[in-house]
Amino acid sequence: MSTILVSGHRNPDTDSIVSAISYANLLNSTGKSAKPVALGSPNEETAYALKEFGFEAPEIIEGVTEGDQLALVDHNEAQQSVPGRDQATIISVIDHHRIANFETAEPLMYRAEPVGCSNTIIYKLYQEAGVAIPKNIAGLMLSAIISDTLLLKSPTCTPEDEKALAALADIAGVDVQTYGLALLKAGTDLSAKSDADLLTMDAKSFPMGSRTVRIGQVNTVDTDELLARKAQLLDLMAESNAKDGYDLFLLLMTDILENNSVALVAGDGLAEVEAAFGGKVADQVIQLPGVVSRKKQVVPPLTKAIEAK
Amino acid sequence: MSTILVSGHRNPDTDSIVSAISYANLLNSTGKSAKPVALGSPNEETAYALKEFGFEAPEIIEGVTEGDQLALVDHNEAQQSVPGRDQATIISVIDHHRIANFETAEPLMYRAEPVGCSNTIIYKLYQEAGVAIPKNIAGLMLSAIISDTLLLKSPTCTPEDEKALAALADIAGVDVQTYGLALLKAGTDLSAKSDADLLTMDAKSFPMGSRTVRIGQVNTVDTDELLARKAQLLDLMAESNAKDGYDLFLLLMTDILENNSVALVAGDGLAEVEAAFGGKVADQVIQLPGVVSRKKQVVPPLTKAIEAK
Repeated sequence: MSTILVSGHRNPDTDSIVSAISYANLLNSTGKSAKPVALGSPNEETAYALKEFGFEAPEIIEGVTEGDQLALVDHNEAQQSVPGRDQATIISVIDHHRIANFETAEPLMYRAEPVGCSNTIIYKLYQEAGVAIPKNIAGLMLSAIISDTLLLKSPTCTPEDEKALAALADIAGVDVQTYGLALLKAGTDLSAKSDADLLTMDAKSFPMGSRTVRIGQVNTVDTDELLARKAQLLDLMAESNAKDGYDLFLLLMTDILENNSVALVAGDGLAEVEAAFGGKVADQVIQLPGVVSRKKQVVPPLTKAIEAK
Repeated sequence: MSTILVSGHRNPDTDSIVSAISYANLLNSTGKSAKPVALGSPNEETAYALKEFGFEAPEIIEGVTEGDQLALVDHNEAQQSVPGRDQATIISVIDHHRIANFETAEPLMYRAEPVGCSNTIIYKLYQEAGVAIPKNIAGLMLSAIISDTLLLKSPTCTPEDEKALAALADIAGVDVQTYGLALLKAGTDLSAKSDADLLTMDAKSFPMGSRTVRIGQVNTVDTDELLARKAQLLDLMAESNAKDGYDLFLLLMTDILENNSVALVAGDGLAEVEAAFGGKVADQVIQLPGVVSRKKQVVPPLTKAIEAK
């Protein structure tokens, strides 16, 4: 039996890294052979969680090939996935995003739910399989839920996420408020990050209509610190558009305490950005009050505005 | 709250019609408002099951429009779906087929498993929701499992299908062997069917590489009776290729007692058909010993052979 590689998305965040570990453990507990892998190094927040609960980062892979078996977690779109996946066989997908750029030749297990975090779904899969969640894996899984829902404050958060978080905190013996704030803050020390790091640390590409839109997101507790680097960031974004073929690049700077975002905008489509969010782009900056979720509050209105053009 | 329309695929079979009824009932039992609909009339087999358990056929709809909410059952591919679905919002999908030609702008509930029948998944959803299955709906659901798995003899059948069928038979108080054979035979009275009926009663279109392949399937207990109509059927298939833009048309005649198929082949791609099934096409006929499942034994090897071309 060949080992199933369990992989999250490129530019992995905490949910992607943790989902690979928690879902691989579930597969291994139900008679399969699985191994978590990653498409990049853990970010500071993820590294904090891994250390707290005693895990090494998953092995980084560059690609897959014919004969490989893949389980995708926390994503499904081809451009966010491991290179070479068309040659491999995808046996299952666990995700909480829109479905696009995904197709298979054969039936598979696909489990998507419109919840705030992939690990909320994985929590339910453990329940359904009757498999006990080890204490340290419960700690990782609750870290992912805290990360994806910004401590239950994101509009993507559902009652199911709240329920899973409470149950996992019981298993792990973790105080969610105290640990959660420490975890989120660990992800916002941006002083050591280069401008290029800020653009790539959590960025994804989205085909919208005939265009390709790049959307990066940086969590912060000090937006002004980021805005001070605006000129250099916009230069790099324009450069990346030209080099990587993006039509439009948005960098969301999300204040995780105030639950607002400010976005830098570079490329073609400022009118569509304004139409999508009902605001003005001034000097390539748009205020996005109340916006914290790329998936729920940025991608859908922007897709609609661009496709309506 | 707008009512969710629960729809199976075009040319509905028993699983599609029954899934619409059983999943709509589950949604209605969990605080949603849902209504089963169909994209065509029930076939003889489905009509037998509906009558046996006291149901009317679901309302037939011609299309959906903006503002409509859709739940798809037993399919996901656009060309098998209700016209206009791009305007509607798909809130959930319950399916057991490959995933292709499917995308959404927002996250949704997508539940696919590689099992023999959509109603096996719906049975699990009832269990997970803690909702009791009414006796007459259990009767319909077991009819769908019998139909899709040819009384558990198809290679698509899994232990999960067997388990669901046994549990549903308990609830419905049905003897599976006796009822199952009567149900399958009800679907094989082909004497009143026109040649055109035979081609369309259970036919689906599949994009493969750059081609569109039409695959119809007719269950029978007397293949010779069908082969006697070969010339007229092949004429109509060639006509349909020209008129409807199919590159290749296969009509599978499946002996449900012997578990073999014979296929008529019309159009461009005889070499690929031979490569896919390792046999010879003689006078536009190919023997397919042991083949009963379009999904598992026909679509994957033919897709592979055509894409390899």
